[in-house]
Amino acid sequence: MTTASLSSLDEFMTQNSRVYNFSAGPATLPEDVIRQAQQDLWSIFGTGIGILEHSHRGKAFDRVLEECEADCRAVGNISDDYGVFFVQGGATTQFALIPMNYLPDGRTADYTDTGLWTNKAIKDGKVVGDINVAFDGSTCDYDHTPSDDEINCSDNAAFLHYCTNNTIYGTTFPAPPKTSAPLIADMSSDIYSGPLNLKPHAMIYAGAQKNLGPSGVVLCIAHREFLKSRCRELPSMLCYDKIEAKESRLNTPPTFAIYMMGQVFKWILREGGTEVMAQRNAEKAKLIYDVMEELSDFYHIHAQPHCRSMMNIHFKTPSADLDDAFIAGAAAEGMDGLRGHRNTGGMRASIYNAFPRAGCEALAQYMRAFATSHG
Amino acid sequence: MTTASLSSLDEFMTQNSRVYNFSAGPATLPEDVIRQAQQDLWSIFGTGIGILEHSHRGKAFDRVLEECEADCRAVGNISDDYGVFFVQGGATTQFALIPMNYLPDGRTADYTDTGLWTNKAIKDGKVVGDINVAFDGSTCDYDHTPSDDEINCSDNAAFLHYCTNNTIYGTTFPAPPKTSAPLIADMSSDIYSGPLNLKPHAMIYAGAQKNLGPSGVVLCIAHREFLKSRCRELPSMLCYDKIEAKESRLNTPPTFAIYMMGQVFKWILREGGTEVMAQRNAEKAKLIYDVMEELSDFYHIHAQPHCRSMMNIHFKTPSADLDDAFIAGAAAEGMDGLRGHRNTGGMRASIYNAFPRAGCEALAQYMRAFATSHG
Repeated sequence: MTTASLSSLDEFMTQNSRVYNFSAGPATLPEDVIRQAQQDLWSIFGTGIGILEHSHRGKAFDRVLEECEADCRAVGNISDDYGVFFVQGGATTQFALIPMNYLPDGRTADYTDTGLWTNKAIKDGKVVGDINVAFDGSTCDYDHTPSDDEINCSDNAAFLHYCTNNTIYGTTFPAPPKTSAPLIADMSSDIYSGPLNLKPHAMIYAGAQKNLGPSGVVLCIAHREFLKSRCRELPSMLCYDKIEAKESRLNTPPTFAIYMMGQVFKWILREGGTEVMAQRNAEKAKLIYDVMEELSDFYHIHAQPHCRSMMNIHFKTPSADLDDAFIAGAAAEGMDGLRGHRNTGGMRASIYNAFPRAGCEALAQYMRAFATSHG
Repeated sequence: MTTASLSSLDEFMTQNSRVYNFSAGPATLPEDVIRQAQQDLWSIFGTGIGILEHSHRGKAFDRVLEECEADCRAVGNISDDYGVFFVQGGATTQFALIPMNYLPDGRTADYTDTGLWTNKAIKDGKVVGDINVAFDGSTCDYDHTPSDDEINCSDNAAFLHYCTNNTIYGTTFPAPPKTSAPLIADMSSDIYSGPLNLKPHAMIYAGAQKNLGPSGVVLCIAHREFLKSRCRELPSMLCYDKIEAKESRLNTPPTFAIYMMGQVFKWILREGGTEVMAQRNAEKAKLIYDVMEELSDFYHIHAQPHCRSMMNIHFKTPSADLDDAFIAGAAAEGMDGLRGHRNTGGMRASIYNAFPRAGCEALAQYMRAFATSHG
């Protein structure tokens, strides 16, 4: 943070090696995306103006935004039936805006409660309108996502809201829940970790800071017919349809966050797309799950086997003291961010798309050694 | 945008010179702030993790956030009577949230309409509650801000909302308007361009992308008593008091935008603070206004003399064709972003804190030459 070291960026990069960052989000980004951003901060497209400093109405940002949307559509194989746009406030703000936009007075919305974030979505939803908790995961300590027959939908629900992947508890939905109502998914922690199953959904949204980029922007993908169905008058920035209609520029958007997301889409495409991501993620997760299956007397996996997440693995050793020793020992070996959420304790390994396989190998090796020396 | 040039950042920086960027926002940033960000993108505080990738709950971001708030307070000389916090959605989202939080049913809020943005604030406010347009600047084409006797306040208003500096029309309030109601200011385009006159205000807010950093974050400074006066139940992310109480981390904040704002605060302090900024800005603006006073047959300044902005100068030549020629000629000499807002035409020179004096000198020189050759 001193200006003394600013003389050579190349030297700085050489002298500062990076660690394995298991943070749940904001999370690790592809290194070549970071290197590109370092350049573009100074001057993008040869304009002599950095990406942070370009007008959101200028030609340089026009190009950034157009490419971001086009690349997002290419990654997700998204048809023009769906609008793709970018909003602010994190996923948590969408917990407010979704019922404000799509839950009319006198109707009910169904929510499945599969973790802390869905619980927050329900609390915020209840301020706006009538919410039916169609599945209450708190009764099983959120150790699984519901099968369809565990979900009690209400009649004529305005929509069903669920979260595809639960970062804190390490669970995922093997398939979208079945409902006759419009289906809305919070995909913040697993979007583009594999092929996007968009068709069952009226709307999906994802805070960028796990699989897509930095914090400060939310990707929204919504069916155009659903977008039109806003149920009440709201100030402009709270209306999804108005933001989509203005191509995410109803006001000044978070231009750098959109740029970064665009760079991540380009990276996914360069790497071979979501099929490649899915295969890599399955292999990475297997490295860690396999150790725990093998050493199941020592390691406890929170999630039930049929709904284990490929993105976030929540686990514990036999005691909280050993958990602390595990985390400290991992940090000493260059593995950061493994402490579990404050609500659960234990450990959490978040291994999103950009997290390298070598980091999973290092963790698996460390887990074996730790169990041997502390078991 | 190709990866071929990534081998040496130092070489890239040497080969890519920067232009004078007169953009109204996102706008030019201090070059040493950009250079620091290039480093910190790779690894901040020697952590081996870049600023984009650190958890918002980790020690590195704790430090970023603490320093950002402390430096913001130091720059603005802000007492602990006021909360300092960071929200998302741009100033436009605050047009919705301010009346949702502080305009109860059955009360009226006063708004002065001094340009496009205040007009938008009024439209959004009217969706929420009863708004009195206490000054209607549209009748004078927004060529001045009102004196106190031009403002018709309502009895027992919930608050008076105004905008200190109007980017599009190039006008500013010489002093805050007088009112018995709580005073709320949109300071997006002139905050910290000089000493902050906080005391008359219950709340001020500023989108970062003009004087404070990149787009994607809004600085809020609100009196703690006023913060408590929220008038209705709202979902969590729409409540200013709840965000302030959680020190801007009710959810994942835009960590990089907050980091950048913090770097800009450090830059202002290094340069000598807001007194120095005010002096520099006055000198920079005078370079341009003086040319137009001298060549007043050729150049027309939109703002009345008593309320001319030091941040945004809106002017025209004798014809729209000459305006186009002026803008094209300036671009050829490395001066970008001079085209006026689409609502007004003409030119706009935005010369915020980080805009260099040399750029104002270059523009003044160009203006003289252009008037000579086209007058």
